[in-house]
Amino acid sequence: MSDNENIKDLSRRKFLRNSAVTGVAGAGLAGGFGAGTMMSSRPAEAAQNNEHHVEPGELDEYYGFWSGGHSGEVRILGVPSMRELLRIPVFNVDSATGWGITNESKRVLGENAPLNGDTHHPKVSYTDASYDGRYCFINDKLNTRVARIRLDIMRADKIITIPNVQSIHGLTLQRVPSTERVFAAGEMIVPLNNNGDYLDDPSQYWTMMSCLDAETMEIKWQAIVDGNLDNCDTDYTGRFVAASCYNSSRGMTLPEMMGPERDWTVFFDVPAIEAAVAAGDYTTIGDSQVPVVDAREQAHEGRNTFALYVPTPRSPHGVNTMPPEGKYCVVSGKLSPTCTVIEWSRVGEWFDGGLDDPRDTVVAEPEVGLGPLHTTYDNRGNAYTSLFLDSQVVKWNVEDAIRSYNGEEVNYIRDRIDVHYNIGHIKASLACSRDVDGKYLTALCKFSKDRFLPVGPMHAENDQLIDITGEQMKLVHDGPTYAEPHDALMIRADQLNPSQIYTRDDPYFAETVAMAEADGVTLETDNKVIRDGNKVRVYMTSVAPNFGTTEFRVKRGDEVTIVVTNMDTIEDVSHGFALVNHGINFEIHPQQTSSVTFVADKPGVHWYYCSWFCHALHMEMSGRMLVEA
Amino acid sequence: MSDNENIKDLSRRKFLRNSAVTGVAGAGLAGGFGAGTMMSSRPAEAAQNNEHHVEPGELDEYYGFWSGGHSGEVRILGVPSMRELLRIPVFNVDSATGWGITNESKRVLGENAPLNGDTHHPKVSYTDASYDGRYCFINDKLNTRVARIRLDIMRADKIITIPNVQSIHGLTLQRVPSTERVFAAGEMIVPLNNNGDYLDDPSQYWTMMSCLDAETMEIKWQAIVDGNLDNCDTDYTGRFVAASCYNSSRGMTLPEMMGPERDWTVFFDVPAIEAAVAAGDYTTIGDSQVPVVDAREQAHEGRNTFALYVPTPRSPHGVNTMPPEGKYCVVSGKLSPTCTVIEWSRVGEWFDGGLDDPRDTVVAEPEVGLGPLHTTYDNRGNAYTSLFLDSQVVKWNVEDAIRSYNGEEVNYIRDRIDVHYNIGHIKASLACSRDVDGKYLTALCKFSKDRFLPVGPMHAENDQLIDITGEQMKLVHDGPTYAEPHDALMIRADQLNPSQIYTRDDPYFAETVAMAEADGVTLETDNKVIRDGNKVRVYMTSVAPNFGTTEFRVKRGDEVTIVVTNMDTIEDVSHGFALVNHGINFEIHPQQTSSVTFVADKPGVHWYYCSWFCHALHMEMSGRMLVEA
Repeated sequence: MSDNENIKDLSRRKFLRNSAVTGVAGAGLAGGFGAGTMMSSRPAEAAQNNEHHVEPGELDEYYGFWSGGHSGEVRILGVPSMRELLRIPVFNVDSATGWGITNESKRVLGENAPLNGDTHHPKVSYTDASYDGRYCFINDKLNTRVARIRLDIMRADKIITIPNVQSIHGLTLQRVPSTERVFAAGEMIVPLNNNGDYLDDPSQYWTMMSCLDAETMEIKWQAIVDGNLDNCDTDYTGRFVAASCYNSSRGMTLPEMMGPERDWTVFFDVPAIEAAVAAGDYTTIGDSQVPVVDAREQAHEGRNTFALYVPTPRSPHGVNTMPPEGKYCVVSGKLSPTCTVIEWSRVGEWFDGGLDDPRDTVVAEPEVGLGPLHTTYDNRGNAYTSLFLDSQVVKWNVEDAIRSYNGEEVNYIRDRIDVHYNIGHIKASLACSRDVDGKYLTALCKFSKDRFLPVGPMHAENDQLIDITGEQMKLVHDGPTYAEPHDALMIRADQLNPSQIYTRDDPYFAETVAMAEADGVTLETDNKVIRDGNKVRVYMTSVAPNFGTTEFRVKRGDEVTIVVTNMDTIEDVSHGFALVNHGINFEIHPQQTSSVTFVADKPGVHWYYCSWFCHALHMEMSGRMLVEA
Repeated sequence: MSDNENIKDLSRRKFLRNSAVTGVAGAGLAGGFGAGTMMSSRPAEAAQNNEHHVEPGELDEYYGFWSGGHSGEVRILGVPSMRELLRIPVFNVDSATGWGITNESKRVLGENAPLNGDTHHPKVSYTDASYDGRYCFINDKLNTRVARIRLDIMRADKIITIPNVQSIHGLTLQRVPSTERVFAAGEMIVPLNNNGDYLDDPSQYWTMMSCLDAETMEIKWQAIVDGNLDNCDTDYTGRFVAASCYNSSRGMTLPEMMGPERDWTVFFDVPAIEAAVAAGDYTTIGDSQVPVVDAREQAHEGRNTFALYVPTPRSPHGVNTMPPEGKYCVVSGKLSPTCTVIEWSRVGEWFDGGLDDPRDTVVAEPEVGLGPLHTTYDNRGNAYTSLFLDSQVVKWNVEDAIRSYNGEEVNYIRDRIDVHYNIGHIKASLACSRDVDGKYLTALCKFSKDRFLPVGPMHAENDQLIDITGEQMKLVHDGPTYAEPHDALMIRADQLNPSQIYTRDDPYFAETVAMAEADGVTLETDNKVIRDGNKVRVYMTSVAPNFGTTEFRVKRGDEVTIVVTNMDTIEDVSHGFALVNHGINFEIHPQQTSSVTFVADKPGVHWYYCSWFCHALHMEMSGRMLVEA
């Protein structure tokens, strides 16, 4: 088993059946893990949970926003049913909707966009630390991008590639007074001008925190930091953003990265950085015009005015501010069995000169178990930390952990529950907002092993749902999910108000409307073919079960743009435009206009059809493109 | 509402709330629909179904194979939990697995494959009319393709584009003695040599049935037919395949397609066609070498020896053979409120000269309701037909329908249940096989309207699960699904035996293994870089949490092939290879080899990382590609 011995308890069912002995922890992970080996006394399989079953026709209580990991998408789940209500294509190409194929989506994605992405941390926008239902932001670790999804139409409207850094890992939002800023944590360290000059000199490698304007999606500034940035979160005052750092030893290989007992959590003073930028006290890198400030320790004599580095054991991972007031943030140790509790007001004191030792911001460091990755919260003062190696969720009381840190004899651990298996992210309902309600918690497990019928070498992940209303946690649902849900959040159903049909003035297709106007075409009524040299624009309406144009003629080699406007007005009467043997298919929902551009390179008769079942005569909803040889 | 009035009862909830009046049927659909307006007396919301709930840790009873419609994929669901266990990328590009990006998948997809597809009818292979768990076949209506999925590794291993026709709609398999043949029904009529010569002469437009060899996936023959082919099914003897035809009037527009009261069901005598092909009695079309026979009525003097055309009311849609003996096939009327029951043995009699009138093969034509689309079965002699316009499933007894057709006074209708809303396909557990068990039925509903929390203008479909063990049907689950599940089938869990890890001799990556051997590389142990002019092949292993190569160097403009072999041996310890800012990410499951080829066009340091959470030190599993300027 070699290195895999690190993956403890990979299959509890097999473990029990075979009495196999699996190692607890590999090299570099030993020591002080007593708390982590305490197992739950309740077999998860015995949970009786019918009261959480959502009957046919009943609606869910929460919207869940799930990252799709390296599927490149974002998903909306209903909670507690854990049913997938929608996939939102973001960084991927989506065959069903034509995302990545239509002109409207290409305008968002940009020219020559990659075909994939690796979404990590979906975040819904805030007003005064409550979800306001306007936007969901999501990062792409693979191609170093950040996207904004409009939550009225559930489509991305802005995607930006972040320059000067490689891999956006953490993503978080300003909470107060509202989400005016988006913070994107660059993970990999690379030469600051990555043009090939410093290939062999890792001492020249660095990464940065980036701050985006949430409305324009332009980058306001970047700040160079020590170490690889990992996860991040903001406070409840609007002043600070914090990120965990791993690889403080600046290693290039795993052994080199495993150096110190402590890396750090870094806190950025946003107004201080923006004052410097406003004063012109910044540089730029290469072709990029983004203002860059230097938040590395070496760049500051005396106290660093941009960043506070708090030593934190070991390769710290999750950074999570405790609701509802945002008094503390908890940083989960990953390679340490501890969480580090930092008080936000003390961070302010440090920046304001009231504290000297960065560690004085730490108010507790409870031992929670093996492989703590992320922490979430209920509304009763308890934290819930995911334990990757223990395959458990541990519930602990924050104030009791602080009392323990201060020397009192108090057991801060409240409960443990097995999860299946090897949990990554964890998130309780509304736990990142002022409105935390302590009802449900989702455990995003990286291995499912034997929990579902086998479906080949690629296993599902397992998103488990846990009822946290009682003293003891209760597992209520095993949810297989496609690779690889990375993070999730839940908001109340009443906190979102999506559009059921498009309005004709929707900015998502405004450029297409402008093109039609320049052609003298009224999209809502006209079915016209406009020839402009070897460019042909075909405008048509769709009303179930008819396309307004059932035949048009072009010449081989013409660049053809097809624009379809769905004039149906009843919700859910969607159409699709599918052109056979041309790789073209796209969505046209009620009152939407969609378009595609391609070169007609095959002479002959080519049928198009409606791909979205719309009517008893749906199959007859079709037409022909005639391409002259 | 205009044409949308045809969509009856689009939102039952709103209907009840608003007391709105919706039309029952539009023009061309009137008359004789009395049976269709009988509503269920049981409100679906009242169903109590906890006994069907699958508790955490419990396994499902059935594998469900779902088409993903215009998502281009196939999905595996667990039944009765209706949880999605896996997506299988087929005609789409998949960001998570690298399907469409890796060399191995491109070998299956072919050069310059489109980025999308429209999957319709998944079919699992048979031995003696029982599912044998070897393959799942699936068609692509959008780009006229057929794919075969290996059910051991759940990846497509052959994809073929069907020449001479446009749009594969129906797909079905030979059942007896085993699945040696795959039948693919061409839908759209086009000029037989579609080179631009007959653009304006629809009298030259035709379509064909295609027969593929299930092992080689080569096309054995094509048969030109009258009308547009729609759905198809085979018998239980291995001799026949049947397809429904719509647009027998050969119209180009919807009004022209709505002509006759009857179109037809066409039956092909496979041995007769293959005897003609073996005798050299065929033609070819254009560049294609596929043998083409003419099964149109006009091509035969006297009795057509290839095809039997049975007049069938009206725009008939689903064709479904009744298990377990395969005595009848039921063709669902779509624009007629009837199903047509045809006895397979009489089809044989007709071909053998024993019957004169094609309609003498019809043994019943029950009135079932408005908009019958597809029919499925239990093991107690009952048929279940989906009614699109009624938004219902109707249960009727086949032998009673035959008695009624023969003049007896008998009520063949057993039950009706509302579904939500506008059902397309329907399928009961094992209903396409000898092992039909009459337990569950899935109703694939095209509209979900108000059944789930709203998620914007694009609504989920609704796959409902119905318990059919009792006299009355019982709705037990509402399942939202992403656009657009078209068809589904369920097989017993014991009928499938997928691999949990790859074997090193898997043919899926055999070409890559051969390339390594030619380079003198042992994939299982070597971490080597081979330079061959400006081509660079980088071979590396992966064992959690390490890539065998953590640094390699190329020159700008090199064509780089990266080959990764996952030497982990524990199931579910998958890795991904993600190269930042290069649009490259792909799966490497235990014991699998995967590869990708690209041009290194950006000088600088480029990190790659493991995208599949594999270990506590997963984030540290990374390496660098150094590109010299």
